[in-house]
Amino acid sequence: MAFMSDIEIAQSCKPKKITEIAAAAGIDEKYLELYGNYKAKIDYNMLKDGDRPDGKLVLVTAINPTPAGEGKTTTTVGLADGLKKLGKNVMVALREPSLGPVFGVKGGAAGGGYAQVVPMEDINLHFTGDFHAIGAANNLLAAMLDNHIQQGNALGIDCKRITWRRAVDMNDRQLRNIVDGLGGKANGTPREDGFDITVASEVMAVLCLSSDITDMKERLGRMIVAYSFDGKPVTAHDLHAEGAMAALLKDALKPNLVQTLEGTPAFIHGGPFANIAHGCNSMMATKMALKLGDYAITEAGFGADLGAEKFLDIKCRFAGFQPSAVVVVATVRALKNHGGVAKADLGQENLPALEKGLPNLLQHVENITKVFGLPCVVAVNAFPTDTAEELALVERKCRELGVTVALSEVWAKGGEGGKALAEEVVRLCEQPGDFRFCYDVNDSIEEKLNAIAKKIYRADRVILTPNARKQMQQLTELGFDKLPICMAKTQYSFSDRADLLGAPRNFEITVRNLKVSAGAGFLVALTGDIMTMPGLPRVPSAERIDVDENGKISGLF
Amino acid sequence: MAFMSDIEIAQSCKPKKITEIAAAAGIDEKYLELYGNYKAKIDYNMLKDGDRPDGKLVLVTAINPTPAGEGKTTTTVGLADGLKKLGKNVMVALREPSLGPVFGVKGGAAGGGYAQVVPMEDINLHFTGDFHAIGAANNLLAAMLDNHIQQGNALGIDCKRITWRRAVDMNDRQLRNIVDGLGGKANGTPREDGFDITVASEVMAVLCLSSDITDMKERLGRMIVAYSFDGKPVTAHDLHAEGAMAALLKDALKPNLVQTLEGTPAFIHGGPFANIAHGCNSMMATKMALKLGDYAITEAGFGADLGAEKFLDIKCRFAGFQPSAVVVVATVRALKNHGGVAKADLGQENLPALEKGLPNLLQHVENITKVFGLPCVVAVNAFPTDTAEELALVERKCRELGVTVALSEVWAKGGEGGKALAEEVVRLCEQPGDFRFCYDVNDSIEEKLNAIAKKIYRADRVILTPNARKQMQQLTELGFDKLPICMAKTQYSFSDRADLLGAPRNFEITVRNLKVSAGAGFLVALTGDIMTMPGLPRVPSAERIDVDENGKISGLF
Repeated sequence: MAFMSDIEIAQSCKPKKITEIAAAAGIDEKYLELYGNYKAKIDYNMLKDGDRPDGKLVLVTAINPTPAGEGKTTTTVGLADGLKKLGKNVMVALREPSLGPVFGVKGGAAGGGYAQVVPMEDINLHFTGDFHAIGAANNLLAAMLDNHIQQGNALGIDCKRITWRRAVDMNDRQLRNIVDGLGGKANGTPREDGFDITVASEVMAVLCLSSDITDMKERLGRMIVAYSFDGKPVTAHDLHAEGAMAALLKDALKPNLVQTLEGTPAFIHGGPFANIAHGCNSMMATKMALKLGDYAITEAGFGADLGAEKFLDIKCRFAGFQPSAVVVVATVRALKNHGGVAKADLGQENLPALEKGLPNLLQHVENITKVFGLPCVVAVNAFPTDTAEELALVERKCRELGVTVALSEVWAKGGEGGKALAEEVVRLCEQPGDFRFCYDVNDSIEEKLNAIAKKIYRADRVILTPNARKQMQQLTELGFDKLPICMAKTQYSFSDRADLLGAPRNFEITVRNLKVSAGAGFLVALTGDIMTMPGLPRVPSAERIDVDENGKISGLF
Repeated sequence: MAFMSDIEIAQSCKPKKITEIAAAAGIDEKYLELYGNYKAKIDYNMLKDGDRPDGKLVLVTAINPTPAGEGKTTTTVGLADGLKKLGKNVMVALREPSLGPVFGVKGGAAGGGYAQVVPMEDINLHFTGDFHAIGAANNLLAAMLDNHIQQGNALGIDCKRITWRRAVDMNDRQLRNIVDGLGGKANGTPREDGFDITVASEVMAVLCLSSDITDMKERLGRMIVAYSFDGKPVTAHDLHAEGAMAALLKDALKPNLVQTLEGTPAFIHGGPFANIAHGCNSMMATKMALKLGDYAITEAGFGADLGAEKFLDIKCRFAGFQPSAVVVVATVRALKNHGGVAKADLGQENLPALEKGLPNLLQHVENITKVFGLPCVVAVNAFPTDTAEELALVERKCRELGVTVALSEVWAKGGEGGKALAEEVVRLCEQPGDFRFCYDVNDSIEEKLNAIAKKIYRADRVILTPNARKQMQQLTELGFDKLPICMAKTQYSFSDRADLLGAPRNFEITVRNLKVSAGAGFLVALTGDIMTMPGLPRVPSAERIDVDENGKISGLF
């Protein structure tokens, strides 16, 4: 077989009509809103129907990402297809891709090889418009805020304490720091401002954590956009904005249904990044997957220090979810990279480097089993260059922690290549769980930050900059201290420095900014030099993306 | 019958499934891409099918708008429903509303009363996502441009001569003039920049004037984004951006099909404003309407000095369309406003004021019949406060110009109230036409500007500011002088001053900025103080828009 790119494999598959997929999944047609033949939104009222007990919740997470690639989404899709091959009733719940990475370094985000969700071009480009709706709601609020000031500023908003930023679903570093409102009195009020990528916005978090429209509207109303001259928070509700924002978001709140290449139903909904936001798909989609499937396979972004921690400490806490098992994805290549091998040399066997990089995996595994008390399996995403000795070493080290390694060949073989992993997941789901959070939400902000930094990252301590310390005091005085923490941190390392690979020790985590997302219901802690608006690389993927005269897309990976 | 708002009327109607509407219109199911049950996109390949002769093209335009409201879209929809009542095979082709006016002053834009297109909430909010796709394509190009500079600026782009602006579909004056790229060398290059509302962007114009994907991609590639240090234009093609932009726009290019309250098929596609852009729905949608209907009823934005002039001089010129008749919409109330009566007093009979305001209507009528050589009918959109004497005066003055007046009662009665207008339109369509443009495209830029200003606006002359004169010279040297002109001018007056109502004389038109839209294929002339980014009013419509727990929208008008 000649090599085929992801998009070629996806385009060569003949998907089932989404009406068939929905019917097989047990979704009544009345809840279905079609977007063409292969995509549908599901009405939230579906969740109120019937009283079938929820299925088992399985989280797929990974080691810290490297340029070598780990294949977390690919493994998630392949695991689900593998469970289907075992005759299980299974649903997938993933995040939607952002246009930022699609046009930047990463390309598409719908799995790879024979473990993909389709239609991959649509999923990667606009999909059903959810992110644009989120951006529009975010920017409507910004426009209403500045218009309020322009029209007399009855709320006494302090232009130097506006916390609300504008949003665009694009990697655009030029918009990180701007001065707007220039050009004289008819054109607004000159002030410092900036854009975040849409996936980092609080509106995205609110959409992903809301249980229905009413809940979403209340959360939107609670969002803090600024502080007044006398230090009081000014909310979206104070600007009468939450109704129109919710109107813009009413369809975006409905989970999107698509399918894997093997016809497994997949919800793809919501998409906060895990480095700068909370990193999980929507509560609503996960609930639907649990309601319909005996197994609901979901994924959290980047490494388990970010995505899994926030999935467990934020999303599961809010929703009352009780996960049954966790899959940690790794590749031999990536572990060698964590052990210091350059990308060009990863194809060669290198047991010392692998041994040096393995602690990254082992720390994630220990965090899952010992900190969070959950059954865990390691999925090694197979590459042709992996040697038997390398695989044996990974297995031996994991066995020492009581954890099985399953070789995943889903990229090349689809669900067939995911059966070994699926069998172990089924076994783990029968184990008794002892799920607990990493911290008590009623602890102080500093205690919670330290709990995450010490227990998950293995840092010596958290350092707050003077600015962050002042913010912590203010947030505590305002009564926002009893919320969970959403850490914003580089995805490449357990530390807040992208170059500290493996399992670093003797480091500190520096929090330079603390803010409340009162609508989402958490505090955001920005660490190191993490930025909420990425930039494009030297040669953006956008330069090779194209479409032919029949609308067929090329250049997406 | 108790008074019902537009949204209540729309929500009380039981629409047909869009599959039924499409089948009745003769659209093969294979070209249909459903967006729920009541919206569909139509594949552009439908245009290549069959060889039925095109129907008659009827343009609906209006007097200069006033705060009293004219009801142009309402009349367009009602005229189509009226033609259907006469047993005619008719299609509507309208523009999509922008979120700017929806959340600003105007509210929705889907007709009114019993002459509306539905589902009005969806049409007014996101619809099928076209405008967001246009904004994303626009902003991808901006990000690629600034990234090119950041990564070494191989093309030698002069940061002081960047003409490409970012876009958002929102009224946000705060973004009119900004400085971006602040914060040090990792965060872009500090420069002056700004946002336009999406409907004013060249990408919107390109989408609306393209005949297929290939044509669109070529147009996108030709768009000029900046000038280099040695004065050469830098295009989107130079940045390798047109492929990814076209990929983002591939679905947006497909016309959207919906229906009127009476089940008449309606294309709603594309939406450039007529004051700051070319003001017509897409070429593709109009072509589809002509292909399917014996009558294709379309609309151009604001008054006939803007929308109709550009529809005839730009869109018809490019597409080779030959309109059969033009409807000029007026209300007695608005004409009295043009005659100097304040909004609060428009309910009272006032024949002297009406006579004073009538020249606004008569000049538009004369422009249509004498400048453009087209058959014309005046549609008076009836209000309960109109008196018999007032209506008689309007009729008499129009008759002096050889033009009939038809009373339109479509707001209250739907198609039944549009039959008189429909009958006159049918009659006019049988008249021989003598369609000609307002200017020869091969004339100099200044000659073309003067032709529009003198023949249509009845200005004494065009004044170019020193800046505009310099731009004119540069554009001529670059070979862009043989393009049609897209005037950007206040919609409230024939002049470039919003307060000169009626039919002013002895005034000049000041062009302060001239730029080429090389992809769209026209020159844009900004006159007076017209701005390409509107602001929100003191109390934005957004404050009263809401959605209930079942997703039902309220507060849209």
